[in-house]
Amino acid sequence: MIDAHIEALQNLLGEKGLLATASDMAAYETGARYDHGAAAFVARPASTGEVSAVVSYCVRNGIALIPQSGNTGLVSGSTPDDSGRQGVLSLDRLTAPFALDRVNRTVKAGAGLRLSDLNGRLEEAGLFFPIDLGADPCLGGMIATNTGGSRFLRYGDVRRNTLGLTVVLADEDGTVLDLSSGLRKNNTGIDWKQLFIGTSGAFGIVTECVLNLEPLPRQTATALLVPASTEAVPALLVAMEEALGSYLSAFEGMSGNAVRAALDHVASLRNPFQGGIVPDFVILAEISRSSPQREGEQPLDAVLEDVLAAIWEQEGAPLADAFVGPPHEIWALRHGLSEGVKHSGRLIAFDLSFRRGDIMRFLDHMKAEMPKRFADVTICDFGHIGDGGVHFNLVVACDDRRLADPGFEPGLREWVFTAAVETFGGSFSAEHAIGRKNQGFYDKYTPDEIRKLAAGLKSITSPGPLGAMTF
Amino acid sequence: MIDAHIEALQNLLGEKGLLATASDMAAYETGARYDHGAAAFVARPASTGEVSAVVSYCVRNGIALIPQSGNTGLVSGSTPDDSGRQGVLSLDRLTAPFALDRVNRTVKAGAGLRLSDLNGRLEEAGLFFPIDLGADPCLGGMIATNTGGSRFLRYGDVRRNTLGLTVVLADEDGTVLDLSSGLRKNNTGIDWKQLFIGTSGAFGIVTECVLNLEPLPRQTATALLVPASTEAVPALLVAMEEALGSYLSAFEGMSGNAVRAALDHVASLRNPFQGGIVPDFVILAEISRSSPQREGEQPLDAVLEDVLAAIWEQEGAPLADAFVGPPHEIWALRHGLSEGVKHSGRLIAFDLSFRRGDIMRFLDHMKAEMPKRFADVTICDFGHIGDGGVHFNLVVACDDRRLADPGFEPGLREWVFTAAVETFGGSFSAEHAIGRKNQGFYDKYTPDEIRKLAAGLKSITSPGPLGAMTF
Repeated sequence: MIDAHIEALQNLLGEKGLLATASDMAAYETGARYDHGAAAFVARPASTGEVSAVVSYCVRNGIALIPQSGNTGLVSGSTPDDSGRQGVLSLDRLTAPFALDRVNRTVKAGAGLRLSDLNGRLEEAGLFFPIDLGADPCLGGMIATNTGGSRFLRYGDVRRNTLGLTVVLADEDGTVLDLSSGLRKNNTGIDWKQLFIGTSGAFGIVTECVLNLEPLPRQTATALLVPASTEAVPALLVAMEEALGSYLSAFEGMSGNAVRAALDHVASLRNPFQGGIVPDFVILAEISRSSPQREGEQPLDAVLEDVLAAIWEQEGAPLADAFVGPPHEIWALRHGLSEGVKHSGRLIAFDLSFRRGDIMRFLDHMKAEMPKRFADVTICDFGHIGDGGVHFNLVVACDDRRLADPGFEPGLREWVFTAAVETFGGSFSAEHAIGRKNQGFYDKYTPDEIRKLAAGLKSITSPGPLGAMTF
Repeated sequence: MIDAHIEALQNLLGEKGLLATASDMAAYETGARYDHGAAAFVARPASTGEVSAVVSYCVRNGIALIPQSGNTGLVSGSTPDDSGRQGVLSLDRLTAPFALDRVNRTVKAGAGLRLSDLNGRLEEAGLFFPIDLGADPCLGGMIATNTGGSRFLRYGDVRRNTLGLTVVLADEDGTVLDLSSGLRKNNTGIDWKQLFIGTSGAFGIVTECVLNLEPLPRQTATALLVPASTEAVPALLVAMEEALGSYLSAFEGMSGNAVRAALDHVASLRNPFQGGIVPDFVILAEISRSSPQREGEQPLDAVLEDVLAAIWEQEGAPLADAFVGPPHEIWALRHGLSEGVKHSGRLIAFDLSFRRGDIMRFLDHMKAEMPKRFADVTICDFGHIGDGGVHFNLVVACDDRRLADPGFEPGLREWVFTAAVETFGGSFSAEHAIGRKNQGFYDKYTPDEIRKLAAGLKSITSPGPLGAMTF
């Protein structure tokens, strides 16, 4: 990158707004997991107008930009490649505005605001943005990946909860689209904001958003369920939904391998199972109400116990055992899975989804096939049975020579994705969107007519080089 | 239309598949309200393949097609213009498939299926497609307009509940897009189905859909609420949401004028108000649970009464009076409003939406201004306060000479839309989308950069003449 461009961008953004030394840029060049690139510069605009100016300059000069917000993604979607020719456009100074509309139950916020900060500021009003994740991303990245998380079953994904956006297009003018009305009902042509949700920042840079908020849960009860068999899991889900309706706010699946990894590596966790014996597969079920407990109302713990007892007593019950326990303890186990799995060896992670009836069939198939093909790989899956998502994590022993084989990981990825997409009709990216890590699979699994449309859409919205995804 | 085209289309579709006589076409040429055109023909394909063949033929021969499903729309979006040169593409034979996936809680259905038929067939499974409307449209039209209805507050709109589509593009090949995976989580590029939702059939013809289903409500309680003042309505909504959380499944506003019109013209309705005196503004509140009533659980009627009593006892309470009553009776009043208003005189209807805090401000403003500008027009509004939607209905005495004045209705529409969109930041089409009736307002209120993008998108998806909307 020639110094003239750095200087021009510095003039646009001021000293704090442009970083170009190796030490200043390091954090922006490194992803959340096994991921490192080299940036030409890091631009840190502090307003939509500054984003527009940077984008316009870069498009006119053919400089590629990678938008980055919390940089917690796992598919190399928010870090530069190793060419040293891409600039990072960081949203980290775009934390304003913060405008709560209590009656509309919405907030207008900057795309650089962190999820935990957002929800911290909303707590006093009894509201929250109901996307529950292990990571703590910023809003721009959540929109670019359309994250779902653990309460999708009850609250849906980012798409459902996004009511407005302000977007800068990568065209010569850095055109600003104001799609921020915050209306819940509005059908006056194309809902353009949908194009910027889950599309990895390829079609424009989100600078502000208007989000739907939900009342904070006021009563919660949780249990760990042991299904009668993996085949019984769908019937258990249906039985729970029939008995509990929309009270059911999470129905998470955890493999015994993942649970054991968490118990082994996260010191604060307590083994909740009888005799310490971890079952092969466990469900975390949560029920919750956003209304306070009323006088004379049965506590939710008791409701959950009654419902589970009734299911357990059925002829051919899908439930073998259940432990109702305090939510913080039970969720601690669920939230410890990532950490536990990470410490078990070299991790190769997949973010898959299926129709709900197909998840367990896929998992059983892979459990049967894996030893035949990759004997040294352990499946440590967990995920969101209630919405079809599976974090299909594979742990390879760190001293394994095969890791050094350049064909090993690509071969494994190819095999898993083929089974997920072709055999079971699933998705190869449930909520991580597309980055350099899974670009090849986008190219492979996206039908020609869709790729042609996507390239056409790119050319009419953001023709300039933007984002890690290509068409 | 020359006979050669009719013959060619008849060859493609068979005798039942193409109508061309005046008597056969009459029903397809007439809209649900004050709306009549002249069709060149009515094509009734019975499969996605036949839709593709018809569309391809018409695009190659420059013949414009107007997709039509239930034809219950109110903006002239599904009927031909009066040129006699447009063909109607009816979805009325596209009622297959019907594939319920109990575990996934989805159904794959034909776009020509009627909402009442769909929900009738789902009842046995304890599920429903949760869009509650006065009209009984077919699925294709519901998708093209992204209808919301009376339970939006709880269940959202068609967009939220659409998990997959099969679409035929108006290009020379009649390209079929299979977007029907039915996955709840899937972020592998653009979510193309979003482009066909709420866009009035301009970008493609939906032939099949995969819909999210919800458990049927098992307990319901309703009340009519009299707010302390119109200004108190937002506070009443917030208080109800704080006390009831997601139990609250409807919060509908009804003007006294609309209620009186219903009581006057719908014989089966009973006046529920003390002394028969209809208040100036009434709220219909519904709470519901999709779980069956459990032993020892307080009935929902009692819950609602307790909550209303607590709100009523507050200092400066937003609630003046309330009548808890049986749901069928209270909803009968709500559902009688359209009928009542229709019989009160010449009706000029608007389908507006606002941020929730702005609805009552808009209504109060219009009530104050209307007599000064249009003394002979009565406002009979009702709508969905919980999601910001207002059916802003104006009744003009039928013997009014001004109706004959060609400037009267356009002037009135212009004034209302200007206030709604420019003064109060609302939408001029909340859930009716765009047809010939509001095309002019699309042209007027859509920013240039958005219109340019829309035209570009049209050219890359469906360049052929399709639908009543133009770009």
